[in-house]
Amino acid sequence: MEDCIFCKIVTGQIPSYKIYEDAKYLGFMDIFPRAKGHTLVIPKKHYQWVYDVPEFGEYWEVTKKVSMNIQKQLNARFVSYVTLGEEVPHAHIHILPQTSEGIQGIKFTEVIKMEKEEIGKLAENIQNSF
Amino acid sequence: MEDCIFCKIVTGQIPSYKIYEDAKYLGFMDIFPRAKGHTLVIPKKHYQWVYDVPEFGEYWEVTKKVSMNIQKQLNARFVSYVTLGEEVPHAHIHILPQTSEGIQGIKFTEVIKMEKEEIGKLAENIQNSF
Repeated sequence: MEDCIFCKIVTGQIPSYKIYEDAKYLGFMDIFPRAKGHTLVIPKKHYQWVYDVPEFGEYWEVTKKVSMNIQKQLNARFVSYVTLGEEVPHAHIHILPQTSEGIQGIKFTEVIKMEKEEIGKLAENIQNSF
Repeated sequence: MEDCIFCKIVTGQIPSYKIYEDAKYLGFMDIFPRAKGHTLVIPKKHYQWVYDVPEFGEYWEVTKKVSMNIQKQLNARFVSYVTLGEEVPHAHIHILPQTSEGIQGIKFTEVIKMEKEEIGKLAENIQNSF
């Protein structure tokens, strides 16, 4: 897609620190790392959200493969996955290795106020929506 | 696994607000919601990390199915996925709907200091590890 920064990384118009590439996916380092080894895995084809990628399971299998190599290289205790989506409107999965350098867990915002009954009612509605 | 709180939720020893269940996976509400509709999807069988689940792609396909129903029910702009893993040592994926109630993006910690060369070298090492 024109003007998409990640599409330009795929085509090479914008340089990147690639760590993985196959016919459909690309893994490259986030240049604003929130942790040592912070990596993004994207589909080469443009989709807005990660769940728009038709081969969603395959996308995650590739991400796992990439992340296991990162974990091994960095001797990370574990790796976290995070998807957001509004920073760049091209599907991307963040791989965040948990080492002594950088992120230690993800900061969630505060617990919100919800009564047990409200949670239960919502659960029921969602369950009924399948 | 004995003493695992999520295993006890699977067996029903500990109650939960279930929203999805099949032979292998369970989706239930986080009772400390960081967003309205904050849900956890777990494998019924005990694994420590999400990437220990052998059918990793399938696990994410199920999570997508659950999250799309949550998004629809809450009319959420989008849903985020987060995996951590040290809070409870039983694989779980957080589904965080992005509505006006609760989490608006995930707070990443600060950008860490890494020279471009260091990032490039690390990328090279990881790429060579495949």
